[in-house]
Amino acid sequence: MSTNTAPTAGTAVTVIGLGMMGTALADAFLGQGHPTTVWNRSPHKAEQLTARGATGAATVGEAVSDAALVIVCLSNDEAVHQVLEPETENLKGRVLVNLTSSTPEEARDTAAWAARHGIEYLDGAIMAIPPLVGQPQALIFYGGSSRAYSDHEQTLRVLGGATTFLGEDTGLPSLYDVALLGILWATVAGNIHALALVGSEGVTAEAFLPYATGWLNHVAVPFLPRLAEEVDQKQYATEISTLNVNREAIAHLVSASHSQGVSPELLLPVQALIERRVARGHGSDSLSSLIEELRDPAT
Amino acid sequence: MSTNTAPTAGTAVTVIGLGMMGTALADAFLGQGHPTTVWNRSPHKAEQLTARGATGAATVGEAVSDAALVIVCLSNDEAVHQVLEPETENLKGRVLVNLTSSTPEEARDTAAWAARHGIEYLDGAIMAIPPLVGQPQALIFYGGSSRAYSDHEQTLRVLGGATTFLGEDTGLPSLYDVALLGILWATVAGNIHALALVGSEGVTAEAFLPYATGWLNHVAVPFLPRLAEEVDQKQYATEISTLNVNREAIAHLVSASHSQGVSPELLLPVQALIERRVARGHGSDSLSSLIEELRDPAT
Ligand SMILES: NC(=O)c1ccc[n+]([C@@H]2O[C@H](COP(=O)([O-])OP(=O)(O)OC[C@H]3O[C@@H](n4cnc5c(N)ncnc54)[C@H](OP(=O)(O)O)[C@@H]3O)[C@@H](O)[C@H]2O)c1
Ligand SMILES: NC(=O)c1ccc[n+]([C@@H]2O[C@H](COP(=O)([O-])OP(=O)(O)OC[C@H]3O[C@@H](n4cnc5c(N)ncnc54)[C@H](OP(=O)(O)O)[C@@H]3O)[C@@H](O)[C@H]2O)c1
Repeated sequence: MSTNTAPTAGTAVTVIGLGMMGTALADAFLGQGHPTTVWNRSPHKAEQLTARGATGAATVGEAVSDAALVIVCLSNDEAVHQVLEPETENLKGRVLVNLTSSTPEEARDTAAWAARHGIEYLDGAIMAIPPLVGQPQALIFYGGSSRAYSDHEQTLRVLGGATTFLGEDTGLPSLYDVALLGILWATVAGNIHALALVGSEGVTAEAFLPYATGWLNHVAVPFLPRLAEEVDQKQYATEISTLNVNREAIAHLVSASHSQGVSPELLLPVQALIERRVARGHGSDSLSSLIEELRDPAT
Repeated sequence: MSTNTAPTAGTAVTVIGLGMMGTALADAFLGQGHPTTVWNRSPHKAEQLTARGATGAATVGEAVSDAALVIVCLSNDEAVHQVLEPETENLKGRVLVNLTSSTPEEARDTAAWAARHGIEYLDGAIMAIPPLVGQPQALIFYGGSSRAYSDHEQTLRVLGGATTFLGEDTGLPSLYDVALLGILWATVAGNIHALALVGSEGVTAEAFLPYATGWLNHVAVPFLPRLAEEVDQKQYATEISTLNVNREAIAHLVSASHSQGVSPELLLPVQALIERRVARGHGSDSLSSLIEELRDPAT
């Protein structure tokens, strides 16, 4: 055991899957002194962890047998089933925490499989990159067995200070996960489009950065509470920035993009959605009313 | 003159167009004691301002004649030309500040028209809603005659404390305008999609709000400096969140949206762009590399 490892303490845990994320998870447990057993398909990825005091298991079966709390973090749902289904019997009575990204449907199917086999199940979604695992601000959502969560909350909190239990529905962590990722992709898309536009006139991303940041901090983020209220109340009337006004302005964006030789593709569906909502007679509504068009997909 | 008006001081200004925004502009000048002449196509919109001490002009010509600094804020570029072209002679030697939203091309065309007629010209873009006009945080971009800007900077700053001169190019304010609006629309779109997703499981927008806000503040906004650096350096290699990883994750988003009865339309072009970039052999790049695909539009 290396000298920079905390003394062994707390619940024994097993971590299955030592990719970038699984390694960070095992590392966090070791750092807090939890007896940690690890397994990975490609064994060399365990070496650094065993050097720090982890127990390297030769098989998945050995790894599962070592702890009442088994964490799995693989590429995808298919890999999880490939690796764990042969160990169904062995997992019985243990708590399985699945931190592999998935869809809500996959998470519920895995939960149903676990229930059929007497395995206590928590699905989780890690809203952080590996270097942030174990930090106070790292957000991890959980859903599933409340008993498993309350029994192991303290141990799970080692992985992220902002650990949050969303309830018994095992589909919710993945749903929150993709919802938040969608916000990130959309925001990044808007910024990339903006950088392409100003870049077409030789403005550097560095020069534009303070405007983009200030705009998000002082305009976009402060709009969210109002957006939330309008959506919850289904009260979309506004005097400030109607869809009619936004319709004219987004046409400028698309036209300016074409003139500047920048593809407007990332913003076109927003324009189409505004057009659709206005055509349905909602031109005096706020942007928040666009949600009504998403709930009733045209396709 | 009403009692809540500051004593008359500073440069005389004319405001043409008293819609929601023009009214806010004239109001700000009156509040700082500037002699203010106003004109609007529909005269009744001037009443509240003349009651506060503004001079109501009966014609555009009268309005222009009243001040060396003429602000115009109408629905669109076409309206600006309709209203001002008959007054070309009268505008000669004055400073015209056009705060009407437009495309960069329209702004440059109006600047060329002004130059032909000896009118000093500034194009501006107001990055604020009417209630914020006159506040220290209100951001207004200007481009065009540096002399006109330095002569009138102090007066223009009455409209917004964060007044910023972008240089002699009259196209830049509109370009920054649509670029920032694009960021807003994209961010709102991501949030609306997220609310539709979690709403499909009965989660209220209010309940989701802290996660959306925290995510933007602690993940999306802090990513922007890195994004800017990668774009400026054209160095897109990453170890944290490759396009390959994002490709798998955005497929979860689209699949989850379909299962939840939510249209994925707002995020589909981001997915398509990721797919396109990966197909071109850039799977190990960061999201920032997507900008290369926008600069070379497929259409
Ligand atoms: N990295 C992040 O920033 C991040 C953030 C949040 C969530 N996540 C999620 O965390 C999970 C793991 O991500 P990662 O970044 O650690 O990915 P990664 O570095 O690519 O690691 C993938 C892991 O899955 C294993 N694996 C894949 N298919 C397998 C199979 N059929 N049988 C056995 N093992 C298999 C790999 O084993 P080998 O080593 O043998 O290939 C490896 O341990 C994913 O669901 C990801 O979405 C990642
Ligand atoms: N409101 C905002 O939040 C906001 C924010 C930033 C920028 N802006 C920009 O500010 C500008 C004005 O917006 P607004 O909100 O004030 O719009 P608005 O309330 O709809 O007012 C439009 C103004 O334009 C006048 N107008 C339109 N066509 C005309 C024509 N052919 N001849 C003469 N006058 C004409 C209208 O006169 P009538 O009263 O006679 O109709 C009215 O004064 C727009 O370019 C907008 O994009 C607005």
